Amino acid sequence: MSLKVYLAARAAEVDAAMDVFLPKAKQRPATIHAAMRYAVFAGGKRLRPVLCLAAAEACGGALANAIAAACALELMHTYSLVHDDLPAMDDDDLRRGRPTCHKVYGEGMAVLCGDALLTEAFIVLAQTPATKRYGTRDYITELATTGGSKKLIGGQVMDLEGEGKKLTRRELVRIHEAKTAALLTTSLRLGAMTANATPAKLLALTEFGHALGLAFQVIDDILDCTQSTEVLGKTAGKDQAVEKSTYPAVLGLEASRREAAKLTAAAMAALKPLDRQAVRLEEIAAYLLRREY
Amino acid sequence: MSLKVYLAARAAEVDAAMDVFLPKAKQRPATIHAAMRYAVFAGGKRLRPVLCLAAAEACGGALANAIAAACALELMHTYSLVHDDLPAMDDDDLRRGRPTCHKVYGEGMAVLCGDALLTEAFIVLAQTPATKRYGTRDYITELATTGGSKKLIGGQVMDLEGEGKKLTRRELVRIHEAKTAALLTTSLRLGAMTANATPAKLLALTEFGHALGLAFQVIDDILDCTQSTEVLGKTAGKDQAVEKSTYPAVLGLEASRREAAKLTAAAMAALKPLDRQAVRLEEIAAYLLRREY
Repeated sequence: MSLKVYLAARAAEVDAAMDVFLPKAKQRPATIHAAMRYAVFAGGKRLRPVLCLAAAEACGGALANAIAAACALELMHTYSLVHDDLPAMDDDDLRRGRPTCHKVYGEGMAVLCGDALLTEAFIVLAQTPATKRYGTRDYITELATTGGSKKLIGGQVMDLEGEGKKLTRRELVRIHEAKTAALLTTSLRLGAMTANATPAKLLALTEFGHALGLAFQVIDDILDCTQSTEVLGKTAGKDQAVEKSTYPAVLGLEASRREAAKLTAAAMAALKPLDRQAVRLEEIAAYLLRREY
Repeated sequence: MSLKVYLAARAAEVDAAMDVFLPKAKQRPATIHAAMRYAVFAGGKRLRPVLCLAAAEACGGALANAIAAACALELMHTYSLVHDDLPAMDDDDLRRGRPTCHKVYGEGMAVLCGDALLTEAFIVLAQTPATKRYGTRDYITELATTGGSKKLIGGQVMDLEGEGKKLTRRELVRIHEAKTAALLTTSLRLGAMTANATPAKLLALTEFGHALGLAFQVIDDILDCTQSTEVLGKTAGKDQAVEKSTYPAVLGLEASRREAAKLTAAAMAALKPLDRQAVRLEEIAAYLLRREY
């Protein structure tokens, strides 16, 4: 199966499962369930669920055991986008080429929609079967810690507080570790845990996720300042407009591209202990670095 | 131990445990952790944690096994207050006699603070020891379902959508079941689960919680329209100002008082299967009905 087909197939499986996990749009109160589905079914790449499923496969696990965790990761990711887009935060009108949740449903409903997606993530994750090494407590602790005030939310706090300031490279890396790398790493780890992965494999995937996550964010920063709104599906040049420190702003564009390549190489090297099983993960990392920029 | 001393002692234990569970205020990023502690340590009654601990005791369990669940319940409750107070929702400036979270930390930070408290609830709850009958999966599913789009969040949605409309008694009860009774019931259930309670006891506590929760909300509605802002510690007469349907508005004040008394009697009756062990829970229910109004 080519990578393109693989990615499309996995994303379709995630969407189908998500449709089952999420309350129906007509279920009362209907507005919140319609809003949740609007935010979730917006044609995202499903990168985090795909990484979760690929990690499970790389550790010899069954997709069926990883699908709930995969969906929980996307719910966590989607909630963070809905809240980050709010007027009181990044104030964005466009997301994945469509009006943002609060533009369609209003601010109050968008706050509640994000809350509901976050809560649903834990309902869904709790349905993941335990393995010999890992159980519900491990899964929940992994996702909640990464979603918490020191990682995902903490990253958004640092991001907000950094606007208009000139950040150091070190501060920038800290933000990206918290905002992006942590959830990508947890995607891989949760997938591996559902496959009863050894601690050694879990460690390799953690290192892989960290490097991949940072590479991913460097590329996102590069795309924001080199691509059009149409291509991105979200407002281009936004970072510069709000004087947000980005890799291109701090390091320059060429150095940022070299940094992305270096981080991807580090990611590839981290996969060594997984050997031939990790071919898909390698392909995904290579694909993410090849994104148009 | 008198009820007053009992309530104060349990609340103090919850506060002490919460101080250990929550990240320190200076931990980076410091703003979010300061905001979380501002919202949590505001002198609340800790009603949900106290119900959780009392239910655990009523089922013969140890407080030490219920304390994490008790704290998780208060974190869930506090997050919902922080988000409900936002300008895009109930737009409230006062809470427990102090400026609301967004008044002090700004709207964006208040959204993130609520998110972080909600996420922290699951980190903390996952630390609850499993019993013979119940495990982490049961605890998480119980709390997340009650906190989700059909209960706690759904109740707030119905509440927002009901503003300015004349609701029927039936619609009003549905809102209060979702917004208030569900989390009080889950407080009792989680406490009982940490004590390995039999399904029969769990059912009795579920009925107790439902009646108690509705009674509690009727009394809250009565207080809102009969008490001053100083006594309440939050803006009085708020419901009337935003044309919110309340029990007094729908049934009248005297009928609302009778309704509260009737619901409390139903709560007491539900406790029968727990026999003498449930004396504290009976006392708490009686105390809640005796609140000044």
